[in-house]
Amino acid sequence: MSKPVPNPRSDYAFFLPIQTRWADNDVYGHINNSVYYFYFDTVVNAFLIKENALAIGTSETIGLVVDTGCSYFAPASFPDIIHAGLRVTKTGNSSVRYEVGIFKNDNQDAVAQGHFVHVYVDATTRRPVALPAPLKSALLKLEKTSS
Amino acid sequence: MSKPVPNPRSDYAFFLPIQTRWADNDVYGHINNSVYYFYFDTVVNAFLIKENALAIGTSETIGLVVDTGCSYFAPASFPDIIHAGLRVTKTGNSSVRYEVGIFKNDNQDAVAQGHFVHVYVDATTRRPVALPAPLKSALLKLEKTSS
Amino acid sequence: MSKPVPNPRSDYAFFLPIQTRWADNDVYGHINNSVYYFYFDTVVNAFLIKENALAIGTSETIGLVVDTGCSYFAPASFPDIIHAGLRVTKTGNSSVRYEVGIFKNDNQDAVAQGHFVHVYVDATTRRPVALPAPLKSALLKLEKTSS
Amino acid sequence: MSKPVPNPRSDYAFFLPIQTRWADNDVYGHINNSVYYFYFDTVVNAFLIKENALAIGTSETIGLVVDTGCSYFAPASFPDIIHAGLRVTKTGNSSVRYEVGIFKNDNQDAVAQGHFVHVYVDATTRRPVALPAPLKSALLKLEKTSS
Repeated sequence: MSKPVPNPRSDYAFFLPIQTRWADNDVYGHINNSVYYFYFDTVVNAFLIKENALAIGTSETIGLVVDTGCSYFAPASFPDIIHAGLRVTKTGNSSVRYEVGIFKNDNQDAVAQGHFVHVYVDATTRRPVALPAPLKSALLKLEKTSS
Repeated sequence: MSKPVPNPRSDYAFFLPIQTRWADNDVYGHINNSVYYFYFDTVVNAFLIKENALAIGTSETIGLVVDTGCSYFAPASFPDIIHAGLRVTKTGNSSVRYEVGIFKNDNQDAVAQGHFVHVYVDATTRRPVALPAPLKSALLKLEKTSS
Repeated sequence: MSKPVPNPRSDYAFFLPIQTRWADNDVYGHINNSVYYFYFDTVVNAFLIKENALAIGTSETIGLVVDTGCSYFAPASFPDIIHAGLRVTKTGNSSVRYEVGIFKNDNQDAVAQGHFVHVYVDATTRRPVALPAPLKSALLKLEKTSS
Repeated sequence: MSKPVPNPRSDYAFFLPIQTRWADNDVYGHINNSVYYFYFDTVVNAFLIKENALAIGTSETIGLVVDTGCSYFAPASFPDIIHAGLRVTKTGNSSVRYEVGIFKNDNQDAVAQGHFVHVYVDATTRRPVALPAPLKSALLKLEKTSS
């Protein structure tokens, strides 16, 4: 695996600003590594709700997270504003691979970036199902060629 | 103790918008009660940093939290935007009592409100000290008469 | 309000050991004030589940948190083990007031203590209901006279 | 990349039991994907502190997290007890790659597993440094051949 390099903002299709929180900082004064994943599922689900592709508690199908990963390039710290960028790089029959770039304040290069893979399942049986049509059309808005 | 009633926005002097996060919601689909306290110390410390009354890691005095409390009136849920309102109702020789109102999106009445008491101590010895002058002048901006 | 003093372990009726986490510590190297409330709802709900008074997702009535508060006496830090002590000091027709003491490792006096008030509502309508019988009998195990 | 399969407990060298928390569960009633990373850095740092290879706030060198990842196989939910297993699969001049397996209650196969890469830097300059000798000898206890 080659060493990842920070992506620019132009690699992402949808952005959500997220206020960092006091408790996001760890003892070293920087955002804790785990907290970046809270930004990941926040931008993914905010996008899905905005596009009417997710209704919490009532959707018949739900996305289960099966794989995540993140590379960290530079620190961010409270009270920075995070801008979480989102794109889709792969869709399967029942899965979607999102990629997320985390940008700090006005920085143009990601301070961290990673991936987040959803497998869609029936909300009751938890068996894989085909991606719902409203989701598939929402995902078209997130297609970006990786730099 | 009489039952608290929701405060209006006009009771607070400083506001910070905070994006809720997917994981703020608990199994009942609402922001978990504990998470409101993350909003509390986020608005307090964001105010202090903005007013140059706190420099994380370099301040010679730090505010230790000695008492907090919150009343919850109505639910909020991801992806709501929280507007955390801040005021100061009491300052002692080495302590400050903040009150925080949590407003949801465009709501005018608080969904939750509470208090947060800091005692200032020497960063090394952790013994109480008088409130630093820059803090005292910042706090003047937060004085509001309780409704 | 008189200044609270730390309660001894003997004031509490049920205990749950909780491993602190790296990210519980804030920039000052101590457990963040908000995190104590995670210990509060963890000990309350662990007790209720153990006593068959709560079945997540299937209970017809759920406890909504309407008021919480905490006084902090001394710091705790990762990797300390927290022992969360629980008692009930007041039950109403549809409400329960829990008190929680947070003990660190083998310490006999609480490092923090507070309260947590549940109002029981119908899971669907969210209207107050009488405390369910299994809950009332579980709560009998938590009665302790406050010191 | 081939699809990962759950590792058995015997693949890991050090274990830490971690009580799940009420708020670890998300709206689907399962531990949120991000929360697994809190278990990761908790087991890593608990091991390092136990082995005297980390003293928070006083170590001259600190481990910065540069890469993390996790595969999720099966759900876990509050009030499950997590057993976080740890091993080291690669040490470089200034970096360590940990692998973590997350086991639920008495389950023998991981419900989730992943990696966590530390680069050691000078606490002040944040420039990479060689792994300290006490760390290197602690890491010998974590060597396991991957299954």
